[in-house]
Amino acid sequence: MRIALGISYNGQSYHGWQSQPNGHTVQDHLQKALTQIAGHPVTVLCAGRTDAGVHALQQVVHFDTPVVRPHMSWVRGVNALLPGDIAVQWAREVPTRFHARNCATSRRYAYVLLQSPVRPSLEQGRVGWTFLPLEQQAMQQATAYLLGEHDFSSFRASGCQSITPVKTIADIRIQRTLLQHGHPPSIQEHRGVPSCYWRFEFQANAFLHHMIRNIMGCLLAVGQGRQPPQWMQQVLLARSRTVAAPTFAPDGLYFLGPQYDAIWNLPDANALFDYLPGNPL
Amino acid sequence: MRIALGISYNGQSYHGWQSQPNGHTVQDHLQKALTQIAGHPVTVLCAGRTDAGVHALQQVVHFDTPVVRPHMSWVRGVNALLPGDIAVQWAREVPTRFHARNCATSRRYAYVLLQSPVRPSLEQGRVGWTFLPLEQQAMQQATAYLLGEHDFSSFRASGCQSITPVKTIADIRIQRTLLQHGHPPSIQEHRGVPSCYWRFEFQANAFLHHMIRNIMGCLLAVGQGRQPPQWMQQVLLARSRTVAAPTFAPDGLYFLGPQYDAIWNLPDANALFDYLPGNPL
Repeated sequence: MRIALGISYNGQSYHGWQSQPNGHTVQDHLQKALTQIAGHPVTVLCAGRTDAGVHALQQVVHFDTPVVRPHMSWVRGVNALLPGDIAVQWAREVPTRFHARNCATSRRYAYVLLQSPVRPSLEQGRVGWTFLPLEQQAMQQATAYLLGEHDFSSFRASGCQSITPVKTIADIRIQRTLLQHGHPPSIQEHRGVPSCYWRFEFQANAFLHHMIRNIMGCLLAVGQGRQPPQWMQQVLLARSRTVAAPTFAPDGLYFLGPQYDAIWNLPDANALFDYLPGNPL
Repeated sequence: MRIALGISYNGQSYHGWQSQPNGHTVQDHLQKALTQIAGHPVTVLCAGRTDAGVHALQQVVHFDTPVVRPHMSWVRGVNALLPGDIAVQWAREVPTRFHARNCATSRRYAYVLLQSPVRPSLEQGRVGWTFLPLEQQAMQQATAYLLGEHDFSSFRASGCQSITPVKTIADIRIQRTLLQHGHPPSIQEHRGVPSCYWRFEFQANAFLHHMIRNIMGCLLAVGQGRQPPQWMQQVLLARSRTVAAPTFAPDGLYFLGPQYDAIWNLPDANALFDYLPGNPL
């Protein structure tokens, strides 16, 4: 039978999702734990691979097994064997025609950014950081050029294995949450602009390697006033990595999860939003 | 001249606050960075030492130096030399009669606890965890016995260096925040009780070593129904560590900061609340 799992992890300590000979990836740890519970070697297939340092609220994987276990064994049993920063959130039996990657109709990511004169400490590795204030309207204007189907070669890492650079971005949302509790003067504001969290949410049919971190680099250039919003269109049309801004840090990047047709009856990918830093509950 | 600093840190990677021969404590890292900026050996004195794995939103320290630096050097310059999970939030010149520990009129701590059938992953080491639902009213009743001046020997670690076990707890608050975004069935609820964050806030003139973690152990015994609320009074009156529950995990414990007289004109200890996990903004 085929089992689907929802997995959350803090990517700070791992060399990304994808299995590697050194074994220190999220997939390696998950497969090792599943193999122990199943009693036979288990290989999982995921909805979206994440880079080193990138987190996931709801990665979805599937695997096949002849053994029958209560759903809670695939959750609690596996969690007891996983490192503390990786956890199975749910387990479901799915039809064998379900495929975690191929059945995903879209993927969603969030980038959480702290805007503050002082860099993160408690949230180190879990939020990106800018000490220069960002201009929301300029960034919003810049993202408009990216919506729809485009050749995103300008935002593609050299090692990207996607068969095509053409992807369709359905939505980009930018949300600002002011820090509420009156921070001390040195961190409260910068040039009269109060400290805040920014959250950037991206939805697309699929993403190229480093695509969001490269878009984030460009969005910060626009938000900080180093480039006009129209520059984003020039970068996009150039179809060349050399014209874009440097790849932004992985720290604040969260794979929110894939979306599937309702027929598969899988838990909603919005489910774990509460675990994002600076989340406006 | 005397300088006061506000320091925030994630305690997960450190052997606590207090300097140790191995050098891997928050104080060691801070003194090393300050020494480099000041150009002479700097020793700091803190408002409240924290254990291994315990975090701080606003630890306050003071130190003396003959060198004059702009305030931002004590913030940005030092932060550039500190590990990424420790940051100076503000610097202020204070009169030499100011003393970070002796002038503190009270201290505040928060314990953040995730109640969910699935253990933390993204917030590992930053929140405590219970999979059994807690009963708020029973816990509130139990805390009432602890308010005021008492001999807290029952909640005192054997190595505690305080000259007296008598402390005055001014306030204990318990707050519940439901997770908002409709978690997947397996993590949404447990025996009909929805998943949530609990935040316990403690204010006292001072705390004994392990006092809050020992109180938390007892509060969970009451909240989970293993003991009646009145048991807390029995534990308190016994003045013996042997009758209390085991010391609870350091993971969710945050030193919110000391409180000082307004004459010192130091930034408010509530300032960094936004960085607590599950914070209801």
